[in-house]
Amino acid sequence: MRLRHKPWAKQLIEEHPEYVISSVSQLQTSWKELFGNDNPVYVEVGTGKGKFLDNMSRAYPNINFIGIEKSESVLVMGLQRLLNEYQSNVRFINGDVLDLLEFFQPGEVDRLFINFTDPWPKNKHEKRRLTYNRFLSLYEKVMSDGAEIHMKTDNQGLFEYSLESMSRYGMTLKNISMDLHNSDKEDNIITEYEEKFYQKGQRIFRLESFFSSSISS
Amino acid sequence: MRLRHKPWAKQLIEEHPEYVISSVSQLQTSWKELFGNDNPVYVEVGTGKGKFLDNMSRAYPNINFIGIEKSESVLVMGLQRLLNEYQSNVRFINGDVLDLLEFFQPGEVDRLFINFTDPWPKNKHEKRRLTYNRFLSLYEKVMSDGAEIHMKTDNQGLFEYSLESMSRYGMTLKNISMDLHNSDKEDNIITEYEEKFYQKGQRIFRLESFFSSSISS
Repeated sequence: MRLRHKPWAKQLIEEHPEYVISSVSQLQTSWKELFGNDNPVYVEVGTGKGKFLDNMSRAYPNINFIGIEKSESVLVMGLQRLLNEYQSNVRFINGDVLDLLEFFQPGEVDRLFINFTDPWPKNKHEKRRLTYNRFLSLYEKVMSDGAEIHMKTDNQGLFEYSLESMSRYGMTLKNISMDLHNSDKEDNIITEYEEKFYQKGQRIFRLESFFSSSISS
Repeated sequence: MRLRHKPWAKQLIEEHPEYVISSVSQLQTSWKELFGNDNPVYVEVGTGKGKFLDNMSRAYPNINFIGIEKSESVLVMGLQRLLNEYQSNVRFINGDVLDLLEFFQPGEVDRLFINFTDPWPKNKHEKRRLTYNRFLSLYEKVMSDGAEIHMKTDNQGLFEYSLESMSRYGMTLKNISMDLHNSDKEDNIITEYEEKFYQKGQRIFRLESFFSSSISS
């Protein structure tokens, strides 16, 4: 996502450590303690402006949502939305998905969303794709038993890559859709990217997957 | 598969009821009794000339293989191979996959293969695709608990359709490959179609799936 650089973004984020965790030193408790309840914790990696998180948190008030985003200029838009219209079940991490293990304890994540992330189409950039082997291994370490990854993208190349990468990792997949808006999924929560692509008539791809040590191959 | 019509095929098939079951009246026992052992029973729907079945039956002598094929002119080539070089763990059904429930008891099939079947690309022919809902429902009825469907095709449209159709049916998928011969699957048994397509440089698509009533959604 390319957006104008906002020099004030970093400062606004630093002024609101109650909503945005920027370093692990700010995180003195478990996420459940931080949210003050025992509700499931859902995480979106590469959360962008946080529109999906906003929609989801309203649709599912009994679930806690955490969005991870590296770019301050983007994340600050989610923060501003939160400041204008507070949602008690939403927090952000201003950080790198590679540092996931610093921000989450094993088993702390009950669902993980990967929505319209950068496809990094060049082979030499494979390692940056958020469904690359190394990322799957990080997700597995912080996710609870049987927890699901839900992925959406408009990029067929990234989608095919992800089907294969997850398969190679030994993950199990379900609810695969090659054209989400022409299928019959009813409870689809639209992201800002998705709306744009959908209006252009582009296909949206979706999958659900989980780490399946308990299922025989 | 289009092949010259062979008027003698039907007769040769009828002369060998010990290898080819053409009507359910010929099937007086369970398949395990017919094979004379307790080995798993693997079925290929649309088995064509039976090359895959031949390769598999040699690679896995402790598994029983049954190929279903409607066309006598095609099936007879598998029969001739069997007559020339007998494989005790191979049998054929000369019949329609729609009649699957006549030929198999519930739970009798331990794995089902769908290899390079007709893609029926026109929407109005969806119901003929061997991964259409109605066929999945037939497979489920004859397959044992946790038994897998293994599918290969060179047709991306049929593959995408199958990912979606199986997902909609509630099946779980794994080991998805969008380019089998550029992935690292070692024990791939080549079919006659596959060899042809591979040599042309075409992608081969592959999936494994199972009916997963025991896994929560």
